Amino acid sequence: MRDVAVIGVGMQKWGELWTKSIRDIFVESALLAMDDAGVDHLDSMYVGSMSPGIFSSQEHLESVLADYLGQHHIPGTRVESACASGGLAFRLGWMEVASGLSDIVLAGGVEKMTDISGSEATYALATAADMKWEGLSGVTFPGLYAMMAVAHMERYGTKREHLAQVAVKNHANGSKNPRAQFPFPVTVEQVINSVKVADPLNILDCSPITDGGAAAILVPADKVKDYGKPGVRIIGSGHATDSIALHGRDDLTTIAAAAKAAERAYAMAGKKPEDIDFAEVHDCFTIAEIVISEALGFFEPGQGGPAVESGATAPDGKIPINVSGGLKSKGHPVGATGIAQIVEVVEQLRGAAGERQLKQARVGLTQNMGGSGGSCLVHIMEVM
Amino acid sequence: MRDVAVIGVGMQKWGELWTKSIRDIFVESALLAMDDAGVDHLDSMYVGSMSPGIFSSQEHLESVLADYLGQHHIPGTRVESACASGGLAFRLGWMEVASGLSDIVLAGGVEKMTDISGSEATYALATAADMKWEGLSGVTFPGLYAMMAVAHMERYGTKREHLAQVAVKNHANGSKNPRAQFPFPVTVEQVINSVKVADPLNILDCSPITDGGAAAILVPADKVKDYGKPGVRIIGSGHATDSIALHGRDDLTTIAAAAKAAERAYAMAGKKPEDIDFAEVHDCFTIAEIVISEALGFFEPGQGGPAVESGATAPDGKIPINVSGGLKSKGHPVGATGIAQIVEVVEQLRGAAGERQLKQARVGLTQNMGGSGGSCLVHIMEVM
Repeated sequence: MRDVAVIGVGMQKWGELWTKSIRDIFVESALLAMDDAGVDHLDSMYVGSMSPGIFSSQEHLESVLADYLGQHHIPGTRVESACASGGLAFRLGWMEVASGLSDIVLAGGVEKMTDISGSEATYALATAADMKWEGLSGVTFPGLYAMMAVAHMERYGTKREHLAQVAVKNHANGSKNPRAQFPFPVTVEQVINSVKVADPLNILDCSPITDGGAAAILVPADKVKDYGKPGVRIIGSGHATDSIALHGRDDLTTIAAAAKAAERAYAMAGKKPEDIDFAEVHDCFTIAEIVISEALGFFEPGQGGPAVESGATAPDGKIPINVSGGLKSKGHPVGATGIAQIVEVVEQLRGAAGERQLKQARVGLTQNMGGSGGSCLVHIMEVM
Repeated sequence: MRDVAVIGVGMQKWGELWTKSIRDIFVESALLAMDDAGVDHLDSMYVGSMSPGIFSSQEHLESVLADYLGQHHIPGTRVESACASGGLAFRLGWMEVASGLSDIVLAGGVEKMTDISGSEATYALATAADMKWEGLSGVTFPGLYAMMAVAHMERYGTKREHLAQVAVKNHANGSKNPRAQFPFPVTVEQVINSVKVADPLNILDCSPITDGGAAAILVPADKVKDYGKPGVRIIGSGHATDSIALHGRDDLTTIAAAAKAAERAYAMAGKKPEDIDFAEVHDCFTIAEIVISEALGFFEPGQGGPAVESGATAPDGKIPINVSGGLKSKGHPVGATGIAQIVEVVEQLRGAAGERQLKQARVGLTQNMGGSGGSCLVHIMEVM
């Protein structure tokens, strides 16, 4: 398999993009990535989108989007793995270039979530859980993650404040990200006093409903020089599934699909957790970031909460997590989220992250998750 | 890239499978394929499904299905390209094995379409057209294909009877297929006198609403001997998109995505149309088979209708088409259709197609199409 690099990334400011359709949003982010890479055509494209059929009354999205992007007749593939759809699109783009089949592949993601009501959106998102055994019993995602939070607090003594500190850190980071949906700081008190959603999670523990797109351009690593753009090498890709329903899992205090995907990505990259300089992880709820920071091996089980409190995951900490603002502040248009993580890692590795730029950014990791951890994608990238 | 072979296929009898859920249907077909291949585990799996979110209130399908198939923690990928979702799953499974990343990959497809009403199903299917410019104006698929039929009849003199003869041939073929949803013959008179759907198409010109699954097991060609099963080599894979809306196309009498995908598959395989012994093509409507038989190069433009009339596409003709019964008689559970085409070609190439077995079956082709031709997959397979 060939080595693969990213030579361009793009995303717009996320939020409630009332004046833009799903096709507008995707094309905008794709053109930003193509401009960044300096390419005017694609050999193939992948688009991650969770539920355009429910959110936007449009399936067959890759056909619409290749058409509107002006890439006539290229192979186009929509992939879906709930909120990990973007990470999955990236993996398949990597695989296509690595296989030798194509030389210029776009991996993108998009979701337009605000054209339906909040309760309809909650229903749409619930289809990422096990609808037969969870969703149709009335359990939606805040409830599922609340159960994990309670289990983690019971077993390890994780405190309510630890959860809030994740939101505080990510909003502080996001306030430096001009593309974030909610680029403002919040305090522990604000989080703890915000509206209850599913005990112990309040509204400020939850990532928002968002419209947005993101895209990356992948080429063979040995051709990066032809484009005259700074390339970032993909050195590890890990992908795993798990029982989609929580009742099918051995342990509610961890997310096995994340640990398994990370193990595979670390093995491919020849890296260990301590080799990673920074990570973008799937903080759909504050508890998720704590659990994931343990599953990725950055902290021992149970130490994720104290780690946030100590500042270990802050931009100047041992392992900065979600310096982009994460899903919490940047927004969570589910299909695009995994690619936006790639955007942040590429910009950090290029030294082009502006006010958010980390001092030490040579190896970055992304972790993108579907549902309550029924699927997970981990990618590791390195400066070339 | 490595050569790839299919060593196992499976599908159940299709129809209205009231007692089975979407997960039951997929697992049943996947286990049939795994048994046929003699494998008890997978490295990875792809599942094509068009709209499980609308049809079955369940997205994140690969997580559910890997779980229920007992394949704990494997990478699982759902792909969607409307009615070409199965063909797309097959292409990605081929790519993953060809790349060297995995050695045992399942490519499957599934749709359960009968748990919602007929009008809801018509809506769900319409999301495969351009909803903004077609669906929301009230145009659904019978109308789109009817426009193509009128254009073809106007330009080439294709007759109403030619359309009916496609249905007659495919039902005659399907009556020998124990897994077909409608395994009975129909006459030209019955087709022409059946209920009008969208002039000139009647109900017997249309493929049905179906529940069903299908699966194939892919391995590197040089490892086929390890399994002791007859392998079938994948020698060509072509994939193309087109303008999803009919108004964006140059010519309504052909389907450019099919011609483009075929051109790519022929080039990879080093074959020409005249080298193909038989084909399974996407006869979602009778006119589609006529147009596609021309786009694949089996007949000159305008000669697809007379070819059916002459018997050239019958099992004993020059190029047998849809000896399985096609979508028309076998059924069309949209995500599974592309894989069921693979099932038929593999069984024919193995000489194991029973009553339907063709005398000359050394090179077979499948053509699977999304929407009104917004996407297309073509695969060519050969006896090893």
